[in-house]
Amino acid sequence: MALITLLTDFGAESPYVAAMKGVILRLHRRATIVDLSHSITPQDVRQAALMLEQSAAWYPPGTIHLAVVDPGVGTDRALVYAEIGQQRYLAPDNGLLSLVAAAEPPTCLVRLADARFWLPEVSATFHGRDILAPVAARVALGLSPRLLGPPLPALVSLAWPLPRRTDDWLEGEIIWIDRFGNLVTNLKQDCLPPHSATARVWYGDEAAHWVTTYADRPAGSLVALVGSSGRLEIAVVNGSAQAHLGAHVGDRIRLPL
Amino acid sequence: MALITLLTDFGAESPYVAAMKGVILRLHRRATIVDLSHSITPQDVRQAALMLEQSAAWYPPGTIHLAVVDPGVGTDRALVYAEIGQQRYLAPDNGLLSLVAAAEPPTCLVRLADARFWLPEVSATFHGRDILAPVAARVALGLSPRLLGPPLPALVSLAWPLPRRTDDWLEGEIIWIDRFGNLVTNLKQDCLPPHSATARVWYGDEAAHWVTTYADRPAGSLVALVGSSGRLEIAVVNGSAQAHLGAHVGDRIRLPL
Amino acid sequence: MALITLLTDFGAESPYVAAMKGVILRLHRRATIVDLSHSITPQDVRQAALMLEQSAAWYPPGTIHLAVVDPGVGTDRALVYAEIGQQRYLAPDNGLLSLVAAAEPPTCLVRLADARFWLPEVSATFHGRDILAPVAARVALGLSPRLLGPPLPALVSLAWPLPRRTDDWLEGEIIWIDRFGNLVTNLKQDCLPPHSATARVWYGDEAAHWVTTYADRPAGSLVALVGSSGRLEIAVVNGSAQAHLGAHVGDRIRLPL
Repeated sequence: MALITLLTDFGAESPYVAAMKGVILRLHRRATIVDLSHSITPQDVRQAALMLEQSAAWYPPGTIHLAVVDPGVGTDRALVYAEIGQQRYLAPDNGLLSLVAAAEPPTCLVRLADARFWLPEVSATFHGRDILAPVAARVALGLSPRLLGPPLPALVSLAWPLPRRTDDWLEGEIIWIDRFGNLVTNLKQDCLPPHSATARVWYGDEAAHWVTTYADRPAGSLVALVGSSGRLEIAVVNGSAQAHLGAHVGDRIRLPL
Repeated sequence: MALITLLTDFGAESPYVAAMKGVILRLHRRATIVDLSHSITPQDVRQAALMLEQSAAWYPPGTIHLAVVDPGVGTDRALVYAEIGQQRYLAPDNGLLSLVAAAEPPTCLVRLADARFWLPEVSATFHGRDILAPVAARVALGLSPRLLGPPLPALVSLAWPLPRRTDDWLEGEIIWIDRFGNLVTNLKQDCLPPHSATARVWYGDEAAHWVTTYADRPAGSLVALVGSSGRLEIAVVNGSAQAHLGAHVGDRIRLPL
Repeated sequence: MALITLLTDFGAESPYVAAMKGVILRLHRRATIVDLSHSITPQDVRQAALMLEQSAAWYPPGTIHLAVVDPGVGTDRALVYAEIGQQRYLAPDNGLLSLVAAAEPPTCLVRLADARFWLPEVSATFHGRDILAPVAARVALGLSPRLLGPPLPALVSLAWPLPRRTDDWLEGEIIWIDRFGNLVTNLKQDCLPPHSATARVWYGDEAAHWVTTYADRPAGSLVALVGSSGRLEIAVVNGSAQAHLGAHVGDRIRLPL
């Protein structure tokens, strides 16, 4: 049974998503299609890369993740098939797979080139429907990925904000803000000092208590904790850290070492 | 065939929903997952309770409704498995099941306690993914709910605004506003006086004709009618009562007896 | 295997969509349900008609498209079953099927009249749940559409803005704006003059280069091209034409002949 997930910046309301699902189901009537999200900010490749990092690995081995955030559609950027860990991906080669590939190197990387596996007519602006969707359906049906095109030596990598370390401080930045106003940072659990209940995490002049769970502090408190994605997050207990701090993606946070 | 619905306040765009679906499908590849909604206002347990009341009972007997609106995650609030009517529920015990349980008492109530059925690592902030999703998959596969933990004597009940009755008036309040601007109230059909075409329903000084269908009055009219959920609603024919009246959840309406 | 798509203006967050899915699955547990969209602007029948035109034909033959944008619910407007091309439709007869029926005449047209195939109780305001959903499930299970009611001679047709042609100009209008700010017009590929790289498409005094793909012009350029739906679109390369021009649905564009 084939499982195909979709991740796009098309908007769930768009005919583009609906058309892609139709193309897949027409070729592979029994495919199971799951929406990862269609609400990525238009053309925000980083946000999509982060989404894949946080969700793809939870899926059954062999799941095909079709991801289209593609500001370069119509240029000569490649479309790729990649096997990374136990998951399979189809996406433009524009950095979208950077984070999943940073965690584990791809074991198979192919540039989509053989038009026999695409729709007969390929539009200039919608390769998700005309190339990626039929390829996903055919790979799910058992088509060997080696037939899709020539091997690709490496994936394009996105420049990504890295944590900085001084003698006294670890400095990171906010890379995503969720619907609750939690500020997700680029500081992953394994680069953090050991948890200390007396430590504070700083956003400008505002100090957040470093806790292990929300219940450690009363409602309304500004806290920092390792969130469900394994990254340091700043939150307000039963409130919104985004609203409380007026924070944005890209803002700095720091932590004493 | 297992049917699992999901109801959360995570936002459809979030990696949280995508991760929960992955966890379920990894354990139970043939599960059918249906989204009830992921757009509940963050931490609004009442809105989620109302959503369940209006939609769950339409599902096939044995459907598992996994609902996570959980401001108390990380506190000692319980997570529960409940059988109510023909439906099964997995949710935090914070009142989310109040309305479905008020209509019909639960026949089986278990507190989730046996960690063998959870993910090996449980985060402090995401019990939906780490506890409820794997339990849903396993119950759908046939695991006996009795094994999940000890029986729970009763569910937490939400304080809910009740209609008030004087000698002359029945007074209710707006509990939900839909996308069309219809104002759904806490006055259920069975507590209403018999329909009378001359009766008016009042929102402050504004009178709505009590009708049986939109077509009873011309476009633009303010009307009251028993809506598809069996509750009295105030509407504008081919328009928005919310915009017309500037109404909010919690506002009062009244009806002569 | 039955495939049923849903298109409504209910909002993905609403209990209305969730209830319709429950009704379908209760009658036909193995139905595959795909959301086309639930974010049509409330009561905007044209937008829904355009959505169907752009997405339905991609689906497997025999797919049942259940579409409900129904400002006339409760009036005597008909509900219809229609076979058009290889697709099947269930919808109110209010013009929603205008565009798919303009491309290809319906081969079977039935007015829903036999209440045996509906829910036992039909509300005054929610025929999507009480009539269309159970009929969709039953047709998917093999019920002959001829049994649903009497033949209908013709569908209601929406007044739709037509392109205008003078000696020198072809004039069209914007009929939809996508999430990227691309302005989709009513000028279909087959009514356009042959592509010319020197031609310009005009929005008021602003000229867009007529290109074949985004990569023909640098980022930020205003361009016009035949989009993935086969219609002329105005776009900004890696930007938003809607934001750049302050454009709205209904605005005029023109092209020299």
